[in-house]
Amino acid sequence: MHLRGLVAGIALALGAMFAAGAFAQAKPETLVDNRQAAMKLMGKYFYGSLAPMARGRMPYDAGVAARNVGYLDVLSKMPWADFAPSTKDTKSEALPAVFSEPAKFKDAQDHLQQQVSKLSEIVKAGNEAEVKAAILAVNDSCSSCHDSFRQKR
Amino acid sequence: MHLRGLVAGIALALGAMFAAGAFAQAKPETLVDNRQAAMKLMGKYFYGSLAPMARGRMPYDAGVAARNVGYLDVLSKMPWADFAPSTKDTKSEALPAVFSEPAKFKDAQDHLQQQVSKLSEIVKAGNEAEVKAAILAVNDSCSSCHDSFRQKR
Repeated sequence: MHLRGLVAGIALALGAMFAAGAFAQAKPETLVDNRQAAMKLMGKYFYGSLAPMARGRMPYDAGVAARNVGYLDVLSKMPWADFAPSTKDTKSEALPAVFSEPAKFKDAQDHLQQQVSKLSEIVKAGNEAEVKAAILAVNDSCSSCHDSFRQKR
Repeated sequence: MHLRGLVAGIALALGAMFAAGAFAQAKPETLVDNRQAAMKLMGKYFYGSLAPMARGRMPYDAGVAARNVGYLDVLSKMPWADFAPSTKDTKSEALPAVFSEPAKFKDAQDHLQQQVSKLSEIVKAGNEAEVKAAILAVNDSCSSCHDSFRQKR
């Protein structure tokens, strides 16, 4: 390889490393902040509205339910990548099982997303009783995962 | 009205007030937390990925761009209701103009959502140069609103 080519190759490689390093390897604290933000917003739309509607503790509003299920469908995809191994020792409510039982944690994520997908379909069909039952199924998925992977509150 | 009817009516009215009050009137601190969570996630997907891709500081990935624009489209609807008048004196980066110039603030929100909607259409068409230009247009909308309504960082 000519010297010029070698230098250019090294420069390119360094550039790529810099780009990847600058953006892909966020600080553990940033990852925790971001995943907590996604969880907080899921809580806002789920526990603050969908769950109380399903339990009859808040008047059922089909428009709000459809909107919030749409939000939840997107939000429920966001937190998982931020449970990176680099955050294992960062202060948060995550239990060690998140990192010691990744396959089980992944199953719990998948289960939530399946339940939310079902709820998304059901909310489009618009049968209130079915929507409420599907919301409660999502609630079970939240609770089950929290029981195994989040500190008791 | 018979006494029994009156008592039942009062009980119903109190129940409705309780339900509305318990869920609709979140504490100002909670509203600020929630809107900051939405802003944080917009920052994650926009400043952490879309903007650097548009500026050539990160390799362009059409799949990631499409996914993150989809996230942004939903996230950009979330913060605004939480800039409630009740949060006027709660510690945050919001400038007083948020509350003293609500029409101008609403225009800035609408402008962002229009730019994000355009970006959503453009990302579906898939022309990289057009996607990048539309990302930078969203960036202008973010910056312009931050200049007027957020404390300098």
